[in-house]
Amino acid sequence: MDIAADRIWTDFRTLRETTPLVLSLTNSVVREFTANAVLALGASPIMSDAFEEIAELVGIAGALNLNIGTPTPRSAEAMALAAATAKAKGIPIALDPVAVGATQMRRKLVDRLLSIATPTVIRGNQAEIAALAGLASVARGVDAVGNLDQAHAVVHQLAKQTGAIVVASGATDYVSDGNTVIAIENGHPLMARTTGSGCVATAVIAAFLTVSSHPFSAAISAMIVMDLAGELAADHSRTEGPGSFRVRFLDAFDKLEPELIEQRMKLNKL
Amino acid sequence: MDIAADRIWTDFRTLRETTPLVLSLTNSVVREFTANAVLALGASPIMSDAFEEIAELVGIAGALNLNIGTPTPRSAEAMALAAATAKAKGIPIALDPVAVGATQMRRKLVDRLLSIATPTVIRGNQAEIAALAGLASVARGVDAVGNLDQAHAVVHQLAKQTGAIVVASGATDYVSDGNTVIAIENGHPLMARTTGSGCVATAVIAAFLTVSSHPFSAAISAMIVMDLAGELAADHSRTEGPGSFRVRFLDAFDKLEPELIEQRMKLNKL
Amino acid sequence: MDIAADRIWTDFRTLRETTPLVLSLTNSVVREFTANAVLALGASPIMSDAFEEIAELVGIAGALNLNIGTPTPRSAEAMALAAATAKAKGIPIALDPVAVGATQMRRKLVDRLLSIATPTVIRGNQAEIAALAGLASVARGVDAVGNLDQAHAVVHQLAKQTGAIVVASGATDYVSDGNTVIAIENGHPLMARTTGSGCVATAVIAAFLTVSSHPFSAAISAMIVMDLAGELAADHSRTEGPGSFRVRFLDAFDKLEPELIEQRMKLNKL
Repeated sequence: MDIAADRIWTDFRTLRETTPLVLSLTNSVVREFTANAVLALGASPIMSDAFEEIAELVGIAGALNLNIGTPTPRSAEAMALAAATAKAKGIPIALDPVAVGATQMRRKLVDRLLSIATPTVIRGNQAEIAALAGLASVARGVDAVGNLDQAHAVVHQLAKQTGAIVVASGATDYVSDGNTVIAIENGHPLMARTTGSGCVATAVIAAFLTVSSHPFSAAISAMIVMDLAGELAADHSRTEGPGSFRVRFLDAFDKLEPELIEQRMKLNKL
Repeated sequence: MDIAADRIWTDFRTLRETTPLVLSLTNSVVREFTANAVLALGASPIMSDAFEEIAELVGIAGALNLNIGTPTPRSAEAMALAAATAKAKGIPIALDPVAVGATQMRRKLVDRLLSIATPTVIRGNQAEIAALAGLASVARGVDAVGNLDQAHAVVHQLAKQTGAIVVASGATDYVSDGNTVIAIENGHPLMARTTGSGCVATAVIAAFLTVSSHPFSAAISAMIVMDLAGELAADHSRTEGPGSFRVRFLDAFDKLEPELIEQRMKLNKL
Repeated sequence: MDIAADRIWTDFRTLRETTPLVLSLTNSVVREFTANAVLALGASPIMSDAFEEIAELVGIAGALNLNIGTPTPRSAEAMALAAATAKAKGIPIALDPVAVGATQMRRKLVDRLLSIATPTVIRGNQAEIAALAGLASVARGVDAVGNLDQAHAVVHQLAKQTGAIVVASGATDYVSDGNTVIAIENGHPLMARTTGSGCVATAVIAAFLTVSSHPFSAAISAMIVMDLAGELAADHSRTEGPGSFRVRFLDAFDKLEPELIEQRMKLNKL
C-alpha cells in the first residue's frame, strides 16, 4: 500500500470540491465543535438524533458518523436505524465507541451497532479499541490513559475481528485493515487537551470516506489531515494554551498545502 | 420605509440598556454559540426545551426564538406550547426553519407552528425560505447552496403567504413585509463557514423585536448589526481563518459605533 | 480557618497530578465549555444524562457535578439516581441550581435533590442562592442581576439551612460553611459576559472536592483559581471582547503560579 502525500492532497482537494454532506449522530458535548470542524475541513455537516427523521437524512448524506458519547435510549434507536439505513443504501459508516469500556449501556449499544452493520471505519483511543477487542480495559472515562504496549497489535486484531478499518489514535496513531498496520507519528499533545478532538477525527474520517477510493487510505488521509492541522495549530498557539489551540485548529485546515504534507507526514508501515 | 443608521443605532443602544430576556428553544448544535452571541449583543439568553416549564419561561421572556434544527417529539411539543403561550401573551416570535426541506418531520413541525401562531419574523437561508414558500427545494442539509435567482421574489411571496416578516440571509440578505423588499449587501463569506451564524441571526432578530417600534425595522436592524459584526470580525481574522472569525465575531458587537453603521451599511429598497 | 496562597497552590498541583474524573450532569448549553474548562484545569471530564448508565459512571467518578440548567423529566431522574449513588458511595457533590427561581420544575428538582443527598457544595449566583434560601427572588433568567444587599447573610443562612458549603458568585464571591463567611474580591466583569462561567465554577469546585482536605477550603481554592484565571484572561483580552476572553480563559489555568496567587488573591473573613 502506497500512501503518498500527493494522494492525501488529492483526497483533500476532492473533498473540498465536492463538499460532502456528513451526517453525525454524536454526543451532546462536542456537537458544535464537530460541526465547525467538518465545515472548516470543507465538508458540510448535518446533525440529528431523531429516530423519526434519521432514515431520510441518511438518504441524503454522503457518510454517516456514529458517536456513542452521551447515549440515551432514544439516540440508541436512532443510531440503530441510521446504521441499518446506511447499510441498505451503501453509505459508509464511521463509528466512535466513546468510553465503551465504562458502562454496560455503551458496550451493548456498540455490540448492537456492530451486529446491524460492519462500520467502514472504527476510531477510538487506545483504551477504547482495547476494550472493544475484548482486552482488559484500562479505559477511565473518555480520555486516553497513555499508549498501551502493543497498541498496534490490538488495532490489527480488532480489524480482523470486525472487518472494519480500525484506527487507534494517540501520540502515535495506528491504522489497520486487518492485514497491514500503519503508524502515524504526527499530531501534537495539545490535541489531547481539547474536548472532542477524537470525536472530530472520526467525523473527518467519515468525510474522507466519501472521496477516497479505499476506506484504508481514507482513514489514513483523514488522520494525516487531522494531525497536521493539530501541528499547525500548535505552531500558532503553543505558548498560549488549549483555548487558543482550539481556535487555531479550526483555522488550520485552510493552511494545508501539498508541500507541507510532504514535509511533515511521518507514516510508517509496521 | 426609512431605515437610517441612527435608527439602527438607537435600537441597538436601547437593546443594550434594557437587556431583554430572549428565550430560545433551539437545536443542540448551536446552543452555546447562540447564548454567547445573545449575551455579547447585550441581551440576556435563557434556553430550555422542557414542555413542563416552557409556559412559565415564555411568561418572563421579552421574545421567543424557535429553531427546529434538531427536532425531537418532545421538543416539538415544547415549541408548540411556547408558540401558543407567546401568542396569548403578545410576545414576539422569531422562527428559524432549519433544513425544513430535508425531512417530513421538519416540514410538519413548521406547518404546526405556523398554524398555532404566525411568527413575527421567519428567517432562513434562501433554500429554506424557498422550501417554505412551496417552491421546489434546493436545500441540501443545513447549509445554503448559493443565491437563488429571484430570491427577493420568494421572500416577498412567503411574507405575503404567512403575514410574517420574512428574512432570507445569504451573500445578499432580503427582508420583506409582504409589500416592500429590502436588500442588504453587508456581511462576509466567513459567516457561512461558521456553524450557527444563521441560527444566531434569528436569535438577534428576536432580541431586536423587543425594542423596535415595528418588526420590519427590527429585522433590518438585526441583520445590519449581524452583518457588520461579521465584517468587523473578518477585518480582524481574515488571514487567520474560520476559528478566529468565530471568536472575533463575539468580540465585534462591542465595536459597533454610529459612524461605522452609517459608513458601512448597504441597504437598498428593491 | 487559614487559607494561604500556598495551600491553594498545593490543592491545584495535587489536582493536576491526580487528574480526577469529574462527572457532570449538566445543561445542554454549556457542556462543551465545561468539559474544556475541566480539561484545561487539569482534571478529566465525563458527561452523561442517561439514567441507564449513571450509577456506573458515578462509581468511577471522583466527584459529581449536578447542574439543572436545562431540566427534562429524564435528566431529573438521572440526577436523582446520581445523587443517591454518590451519597451511598461517599462521592462529593457540587450542585448548581441554575435559574431555580424561574420555574416550578427547577424548584421541585432542586428540592428533590436536596432531599436525596445534602450536596457538599451549592454554588449559584446571588439571585439563585436567595431564591433557594426562600427569600423573595430577584432572579431573572439565568444571569445575576447585581449584588444583593446582605448577600453574605443569605449565603450564611443557606449554609446553615442545608448543611452544605454555599457559594454565591458575583462581583464579590461569598463562601460559607454556616459559621464563617469568606468574601473573595477577585475575578473580572468579562466573566459575566461569558455563558457558562458560573456553571464552570461549579465544575471546578467539584474537581477541587477530590483533593482538598475540607470542602470549605476546596470551594475557596476553586473560586480563587476560577477568578484568577478570569483576571489573567482579561489581562490578555480586555481590549478585544468577550469572544477572546473565553479563549484566554481556557488558556489561563496553565499560567497560574504560586507567586501570582499570593500577589493577587483578595480573600477576607467577614
